[in-house]
Amino acid sequence: MDYDRYDRIRALQWQGTALRLLDQRRLPMEEVFIDCHSAAAVAAAIANLSVRGAPAIGIAAAYGVVLAARQRTSADGCIDRAGLAADLRELAASRPTAVNLCWALKRMQRLLDAGASVAALAAEAVAIEREDLAANRHMGSLGAALIAPGSGVLTHCNTGSLATAGFGTALGVIRAGVASGRIARVFNTETRPWLQGTRLTAWELLKDGIDAKLIVDSAAAHLMRTGAVQWVIVGADRIAANGDTANKIGTYQLAICARHHGVKFMVVAPASTVDRQTASGSDIEIELRDASELLQSAGQRVAAVGVQAFNPVFDITPADLIDVLVTERGVMPSPDTAKLAMTFAET
Amino acid sequence: MDYDRYDRIRALQWQGTALRLLDQRRLPMEEVFIDCHSAAAVAAAIANLSVRGAPAIGIAAAYGVVLAARQRTSADGCIDRAGLAADLRELAASRPTAVNLCWALKRMQRLLDAGASVAALAAEAVAIEREDLAANRHMGSLGAALIAPGSGVLTHCNTGSLATAGFGTALGVIRAGVASGRIARVFNTETRPWLQGTRLTAWELLKDGIDAKLIVDSAAAHLMRTGAVQWVIVGADRIAANGDTANKIGTYQLAICARHHGVKFMVVAPASTVDRQTASGSDIEIELRDASELLQSAGQRVAAVGVQAFNPVFDITPADLIDVLVTERGVMPSPDTAKLAMTFAET
Repeated sequence: MDYDRYDRIRALQWQGTALRLLDQRRLPMEEVFIDCHSAAAVAAAIANLSVRGAPAIGIAAAYGVVLAARQRTSADGCIDRAGLAADLRELAASRPTAVNLCWALKRMQRLLDAGASVAALAAEAVAIEREDLAANRHMGSLGAALIAPGSGVLTHCNTGSLATAGFGTALGVIRAGVASGRIARVFNTETRPWLQGTRLTAWELLKDGIDAKLIVDSAAAHLMRTGAVQWVIVGADRIAANGDTANKIGTYQLAICARHHGVKFMVVAPASTVDRQTASGSDIEIELRDASELLQSAGQRVAAVGVQAFNPVFDITPADLIDVLVTERGVMPSPDTAKLAMTFAET
Repeated sequence: MDYDRYDRIRALQWQGTALRLLDQRRLPMEEVFIDCHSAAAVAAAIANLSVRGAPAIGIAAAYGVVLAARQRTSADGCIDRAGLAADLRELAASRPTAVNLCWALKRMQRLLDAGASVAALAAEAVAIEREDLAANRHMGSLGAALIAPGSGVLTHCNTGSLATAGFGTALGVIRAGVASGRIARVFNTETRPWLQGTRLTAWELLKDGIDAKLIVDSAAAHLMRTGAVQWVIVGADRIAANGDTANKIGTYQLAICARHHGVKFMVVAPASTVDRQTASGSDIEIELRDASELLQSAGQRVAAVGVQAFNPVFDITPADLIDVLVTERGVMPSPDTAKLAMTFAET
């Protein structure tokens, strides 16, 4: 399948001596790139959300290590080990909860420990990026093959090219489904309170020429009732050993509504998202963010002074509401502890 | 039960020669009142959403008729019938879909046809307002009595003092439940895309000293899963003969999630909301509003130019997801066609 037509966005672009990043804070109004020439600049871009999405953060950090090694190596080949270690600590601290960030840094650290050259480090970072893109295209094909021709799909948050090396996870399945002619209708949620759906996913789909319609998060069940949607397709922030899945707030609600209407529910994520050290969703702490995200809109106050808010970022979708889990290792219907143990023995 | 402590907001205030309205467009940032001295001014206030909420619109229109009669009656007692009829047409056209608006105008028309004096018309408008407040307090008591002490409740949109003569429908039950000490926790949704929950309901609860927490619409299921909520309490825009209920988009999703978690679902609405001419929810047309409501935020564009949106205002909650319907006529568990026919024989 030729996916290139629907895969034109690259938010991370390695320039050899700099990492060029599409500044996601300014999307969709402006398409501005930032050139990072140092590990510190990459760490800042991760911390200030210029780059976001777990796989994209991991790739950016890997390139950050390359930039660090270049800067810390003198003309005569001497390496400032202490300075390099400090750079890696700065990268690791830029988004401490991101699993992929640690994973990518560990992979680069292994090469550093083996005394790899800057060129070898750069080749490794490029490999991490290419592997992510290849995994996404593979997951796209696997997921799209499950969708009956003429189907409508609904996605939540942003899991696309902006969050990965390219193509995306859940949005990659949608790209693949559109490319193969199986998907006839695409809907995406706003995704309150950050509006990643409105700002990022809608922009990506428009950019790649995929017809889509935006809905408020609370219109999903109504949409399902009209018969417009046959699949809900989402990503994952963390998948527990039993298949329970942590993802953007609202995912759980979509899964309940999907089951109620006989709409299928697909989770698409790289194997690195599976955390077999976490037994079930109840062991995942739900991060609460500041109330101000609900009390302000576009920088203006919308609630009265004194109004309180409860603002969880993620929720847990129990495995029994997930019809299929797609990773680069394959399609897993009705994920459970035994199946996950078999497929992800080493994680 | 003394409800006065939790019922301090009056958005409509009859001044004898003018109707004073709390301008809801400027809430919660400013509390500004508008004095309407003519039917035209009242019609404009309804049309431009200074006053909103079906019962509140009906009451405002009734006072608009009083103002019209006063203006169209000369010093010698002659009435300009044609002018008066034009005023009533203007009021009727101010929000053509509001059921309560027609109902209130018909009730005033009956008095006009009988040659009632301006004083008699004013007394009738005051009666309409007082009856609404009394009905709300009665529904509040009925609904609150169903709630076990120590419960948490979740509401959607705005159904409070701002939408009625005072106290509110669903929010009236919450006020009564707080006053009687039965409700321990109150949550309310933002209610995208208009944010009536953030702007109006949160303001009302704060104003009346009721502790509450705002959530994004898509956090409702997560909240239910934590056990924080035992009842979802909502209003209704229209109730079909079989109990299917049209209400603000997102209501249906809350009902599905409530049923999934064993959380009870209560609809609170005056009898005038029951439309027995409409057989079921599938006969209710769902109004679609402009995509721009999703594409802009606080007057600023948030989606890329070219992004499309699907923006239904209402959805239908089927009767079988409603545990109880509360009207001023009483409590109806598991509403259905037979029960509604019995209770609302004449509507």
